[in-house]
This record gives sequence, C-alpha cells and structure tokens, in this order.
Amino acid sequence: MNTKTPKLQLLPTEIIQKKKNNASLTKEELSWFISSYLNNEIPDYQMSALLMAINFNGMDLEETVNFTELLINSGEQLIFKNDGKQIVDKHSTGGVGDKVSLILGPILACMDYKIPMIAGRSLEHTGGTIDKLESISGFKVDIPLNQFQKNVNKIGLGMMGQSAEICPADGKIYALRDVTATVNSLPLICGSILSKKIAEGIQTLVMDIKTGNGAFMKNLEQSQKLGELMTEIGKHFNLKVHPVFTGMDQPLGKTAGLWCEVKESIDFLKGDYAKDLYNVTFRLFQQFNPTQNTKAVFDNLISSGKALNKFIEFIEIQGGDSSTIEQKIVHHPKFKKDCFLENNLYIESMDTRQIGFAIAQLGAGRPTKESKLDFSCGVEFHAKIGNKTDGNSPAFSVFGNNSDKLKIAVEKIKNAIQISPKPIKVYNPILN
Amino acid sequence: MNTKTPKLQLLPTEIIQKKKNNASLTKEELSWFISSYLNNEIPDYQMSALLMAINFNGMDLEETVNFTELLINSGEQLIFKNDGKQIVDKHSTGGVGDKVSLILGPILACMDYKIPMIAGRSLEHTGGTIDKLESISGFKVDIPLNQFQKNVNKIGLGMMGQSAEICPADGKIYALRDVTATVNSLPLICGSILSKKIAEGIQTLVMDIKTGNGAFMKNLEQSQKLGELMTEIGKHFNLKVHPVFTGMDQPLGKTAGLWCEVKESIDFLKGDYAKDLYNVTFRLFQQFNPTQNTKAVFDNLISSGKALNKFIEFIEIQGGDSSTIEQKIVHHPKFKKDCFLENNLYIESMDTRQIGFAIAQLGAGRPTKESKLDFSCGVEFHAKIGNKTDGNSPAFSVFGNNSDKLKIAVEKIKNAIQISPKPIKVYNPILN
Repeated sequence: MNTKTPKLQLLPTEIIQKKKNNASLTKEELSWFISSYLNNEIPDYQMSALLMAINFNGMDLEETVNFTELLINSGEQLIFKNDGKQIVDKHSTGGVGDKVSLILGPILACMDYKIPMIAGRSLEHTGGTIDKLESISGFKVDIPLNQFQKNVNKIGLGMMGQSAEICPADGKIYALRDVTATVNSLPLICGSILSKKIAEGIQTLVMDIKTGNGAFMKNLEQSQKLGELMTEIGKHFNLKVHPVFTGMDQPLGKTAGLWCEVKESIDFLKGDYAKDLYNVTFRLFQQFNPTQNTKAVFDNLISSGKALNKFIEFIEIQGGDSSTIEQKIVHHPKFKKDCFLENNLYIESMDTRQIGFAIAQLGAGRPTKESKLDFSCGVEFHAKIGNKTDGNSPAFSVFGNNSDKLKIAVEKIKNAIQISPKPIKVYNPILN
Repeated sequence: MNTKTPKLQLLPTEIIQKKKNNASLTKEELSWFISSYLNNEIPDYQMSALLMAINFNGMDLEETVNFTELLINSGEQLIFKNDGKQIVDKHSTGGVGDKVSLILGPILACMDYKIPMIAGRSLEHTGGTIDKLESISGFKVDIPLNQFQKNVNKIGLGMMGQSAEICPADGKIYALRDVTATVNSLPLICGSILSKKIAEGIQTLVMDIKTGNGAFMKNLEQSQKLGELMTEIGKHFNLKVHPVFTGMDQPLGKTAGLWCEVKESIDFLKGDYAKDLYNVTFRLFQQFNPTQNTKAVFDNLISSGKALNKFIEFIEIQGGDSSTIEQKIVHHPKFKKDCFLENNLYIESMDTRQIGFAIAQLGAGRPTKESKLDFSCGVEFHAKIGNKTDGNSPAFSVFGNNSDKLKIAVEKIKNAIQISPKPIKVYNPILN
C-alpha cells in the first residue's frame, strides 16, 4: 500500500461506526482500514461489518475513486507496449450460466485485440470464470504476472484470477463479500471490477451489466446507475467503459455450473449454441467494432474453427489439458436427476437467484471462504421461459457428487420455476 | 441449543441477505444461524455481517423474543429457592465511568435482596463491570455456576461474566459486537441483556437506560423505546422490568477506566463520592422499594460501613485480595499526564463517546477480540460540565502504561471538551 498511517490513531470500530452513521470516509481512513486488513491487522469480521455498512450507506464518488485507487495500488499494474493492437476486455457483473467470457475471449483474440482478462470467482448465487476454468485439468489461473503478460502478447488472450500481484486487497475483500452477502453494492462492485481492469492495463472495457432476478442489479434503473458510475470512475483512470445491459431473468444458455459451462462454451465455438447465449455474446462483440460487418466476422470466426483453435491455444498456454475439448464428459458426476414439469404448460418465469443459490449449494459455490468446489455439478435446462413443457421429457437435469445436496437443489429449482397455461413469449436477454 | 436444523437446507448468506432485504427471520433460521455460530460452523465474519444488517433493519417483536429465548437456551438457567428474599438485579446499557453496579450491588445485598449479577465486559467506548472487577488481584469472574449460586445464597451478592454455562451464545455474539460497531441495536441490546437476566433467575430488573452523547441511546425517545421493548420482552419471560433513564452527556463520577473505577467505588462506599454518581446510584436504589424512607436507609448502609463490609465479603468470596480496599494504588500506571484548560471559562459540553473511545484506546477496551487490557489506565476528571476552569489546576489527568497511547488519549479528550465564557449549569444526570 502506498499510504502508511500510524496505527494508534484509529480504532477499527470508529471507522465502521462512521460509515454506519452514513458519513464519508477519508482517503486516509480507507487506506488505513484496507492496508491493515491486507496485513491481517484487521480481522475478517471487522471488514465484513464495514462492507455491510457500505452496502447500506454506499460511498460517494470521491470515496469510490479512492477505494478503486487503493485496490489498484495494493498490487502491480500491467503496461503493454503499443504494437498496433488494442488492449481491451469484457466483463460481466455476474449471473447464472453466464459463460460469455470463455467464448468471447478467444473470438476477440482472433482479431486485432489483446485481452488480458483478470476474472473472478463465484460470488453468492453467481458463477465465476476462474472457478469454471479450474475445472479444466491442469489449467493454471494463478500464473506469474510477467508470464501472463507474455502469453497475452503471444496469443492475444490470457485469463487469471487475482493474485498477490494484482489487486490483492480486492482479492481478499472479494472473497469475503461472497460469503457475507455484501456483494450487492454499486461502489463495491464498481471498485472491485474497475481496479482489476485498470491494473490489467486495458484501454477499453465492454461491461455487461446483468439485469434481472438472477443478477445483482434487479432493474434497468439500478443497472444504468452502475453503468454511469463505472463510466465516471473509468474516466478518472483513463479507461473507456461501454456499458451494455443484458437480461438475467433466466439462466443464460443451456447449462449452469462449473465444468458443464466450459463444455457448453466449447460446443458454442464448435457452432452448437443456445440462441440467448449467442445473442448476448454477439451484442458484446458488436461494442468493440460497431461499424464493421460484425455478424459475418463473428460467425466466420466460429465456422472457420479459428475461435476454437484460439481457445485450445489458450488452454494449452495456461497449462490446461486440451484433449478436454474432445471429451464429452471430463467430470463425471456420481448422481444425475432428470426433472419433469406438468405437461402442456408454458414456463412463465424462473427465479434465477434461487436457481443460482441451488447450484452454489450443490457444490459450485462456497458456503464459507474455505469450501471446496464440486466441478462435476450443475444443471442443464432443457426448457426455459416461453417453452412449452412436455411431461415426457425432462425440463431440467441436475447433477453432482453429493446425493443429499442434489435432492435439495432439485426441490429448490422446481420451486423456482413458475408455469402457466397461457402462452408466454420466449425471453429475450437483449435490453438495449 | 434446543433446535437442530439440518445443515444443508440453508446457506448462511441467504439468511444474511434476507435480513439485509428487511425481511423477518423465522425462529428456525435464527436458531440455525446462532447454533451454527456457537458450534464454530459459521465464522465470525458471517455473524458480524448479519449483526450489521440487524443494526440497520432491526428485528420485530417475535424475532426479538425468539432471539432472547435462543440465547437463554444456549446455556443453563439459575433457579433460586423461595426463602423470603427477592431475587433482583440492576443493569445499565453502558456508559463512560458508570461504576454503579459495583456500588449498588453491595448496598442491595445488605437488605432483603439476592443479586446474582451476570455482568458484561467493555463494549465499544463503554466500560464493563467484569473488566473492572478483573483489575482486583485474584478476583474470579468465571466461577462455576453452582458455586456462584451458593455465594449469592450465602452473602446475597455475586458477579460473574458469561461463561459456557450462562448464555454462551450471547457471550460469543457480545464479544463480536464490541469489535464490529454493531452494539447499537435495540433488539440486540434487549436480547443480550434480558437473556442473561432471565438466565440468572431474577424476578425484578431495574434497568438504567443511559441516554446522551456517551450512551448507545442518544436521546430520550430512543431510550424510552428500548425501555418499552425490554418491558414487553420481559413480560414474555415473567420478568418485571423497571426502566430508569439517566443522562450520559458526561462521564459519570470522577474517573473512567478500569482499576480507577473500582477505587472510586470503594471510596463511595467509604462515604467519599461525586454528586452525580450518588444521584444516579440512589435513583436506582429507590426503584427497588420506593415506599420506604429510602434516603435514610441508603445513607445509613454507607455511613455504618455495612455496604463496604459487604463489598469486602463479596471480593473475598470470589477469590479477590481484599487488602486492595486499603491500598491507594493497586495498579500503578507508568505514565500520568495532568491536562489543563484555558483559565476562567466554563465547561460547556463533553463528547463522552469520544472520551470513551480515548479510554478504550488507551488500554481499557479491546481493538480486537484478542486484545489485552491495561488495568492501570484511565482518566480522572477534576472538572465537569458547569465547572469553572482553573488554568493552574488540571481539568483532567490521564494515566496508563503506554506513553504513545497516552499522548493520543490526551489530545482526543482535550478535543472532546468544549469550553465557554458563559456560565453553564452543572449537569444533572437524572432524567425521569
């Protein structure tokens, strides 16, 4: 950390209390609290109390800029040489079944872009790219920063998690937010995402702001606020932010879980995709170069096999076993349950947050910071909003290695799906 | 705990999120969360997030009754035989320099009362009876419950902290609240205090609800709400609660700290007292038997030496060294600083909370749960609100074993005292 504050001047509780009283924290106070936390001088339970107070009372623009800067300065920053390629990234605020990064990363890397993606782990009911990547045998998400940069320079794409080198303060806070229900705060979300993106050294960020019952933002108004905040904070650090708003009122694509989402991404790059997932991925792709004949370019990168090859290249350069690509099942779940809904009705709505919690609880998320994941677990959705139910075909299938957890997840997901005799429109996740 | 809930049904974050969304928690949810916390299956950082959410969104009456019951049922309950003596207690919501329990306990024990007092430790900026008692050499605050009950039956008085036997869930939560700025919540305060008082087996509780800038309740309206809540919750458990409202806009009595407050209590019982401390102690005493000639009875118990002898008896039965009583200084602080204010002005106000934090930071409180206390540390106030300053005599003296912390405390206390050229009325802590 760049600021050393004498430790005796402050009690942690005074700072927590100040935020609880809805006052703004000074840069010095934030700096002291965050650096003390990173140095293990402030315990988790005090940070989680502060985070919850911030969830209720927010942070003003100045606090959010300071917070972001402190997270960045807790680690290193990448600097890319100008070789004509744009340094860009996409990021999502998180949803259920959102595997767009795994698909769009390789596609962009086939073009004149370099994508040094610092990605996140699962948070609350949402899945995390890093956790999904770790389901690939041998794949390393914690590579040294200089190696990561070399990889990006070489193949155009890298994905890694936070490390001691990149925003370590954010890494520690992010893990804590996940297990304390303190994720859903605009300034915390903004600081956490942008600090990593700024530390990556990118010039442009396409920001997929998920909106709906499975997202942290429940309505477009909230999402737009976050978009404005991120654009504003980005400006302070010379980062162009393009917010895109996509719907999260149902899980995205066919699957949600860990390995099953990697598998679905591979299928996508082979040309086999769910329409909603295609639409969202393409919508984000458009943002990078809206003037080109983007549809043809996008489709060609898939049909030519270029994007899939880039994905293989990417897996291999990060130590992963690319034979994975040809295997139907890498993580074979011990248990699988096909679930049926009443015949001849329409799926009206899906409580995506509850579905996400069911999947997290099944083994894709962490009840506490120390929990182990079950890579094999997940859900496959055979029908989604607007589809007619067929009493003879499963509406969804749940799989994983713990039969007790499986039973609970099945119940939870069943309860999360509303059906209706009236025809319902198929859900369109494109909101702007 | 009396309720065992299957662990897989719930994620801790779902319960935290529910409270964060301002919903009521069911008895089953509260029970699961509290028992899991007590069994170390839910970590501190999740409990502190829930506590902060409760600080913001409160708990309804049913939740508060359930919370109180769960705390009681986490341990044992005392039952006293009916031998004609009333089983009573007094409790304070906490302030700075509030040593009334140490004085009123022995006084009541000279009459037809038994006082099985489960007392608290320092919380945030406020001092705790248990921490003060531990400054007496040999004094045991963690005695077995049956021994504690025997003592109370024998001499009428006992004081102990929470233990594994009495409301252990409250003990663990209370310690966490202290270091996470989550003390100030009516239902949490109510549940924490009443659970211990109900577990003590008392019939009547005189509740000193401190009000003012050094108390958790900042105004009489808030205090009255707490008084009503405690009276209401008390009824559910057959406990008569008498709320009394006393002012905490300045430290109570002459001193605030640890050993210095025990010393001041001994002086009180020897007949040497500050007027405000006398008034508050007597006001509470009156509640127990308002029809008697209470003033004469009260004064006589002091002037006769009976109350002092009871205090000595009480110290000895709990293993303390009663030679303490005759020693001027037991904990000799390494450093002491006399502090002066500008001459010939009036003390207009004292930011008692800041003064309390200064004393906590000096060594009388715990920055984190693991911190060690400095029994020698504290402040002596030579002048308080309404007193004229004398440039030649110190207005207050700060003492303790850490010279760096001493300097900070001196500054903090100086900044907390406002002086005025206009004469100011002497502060009266009796509010009702």
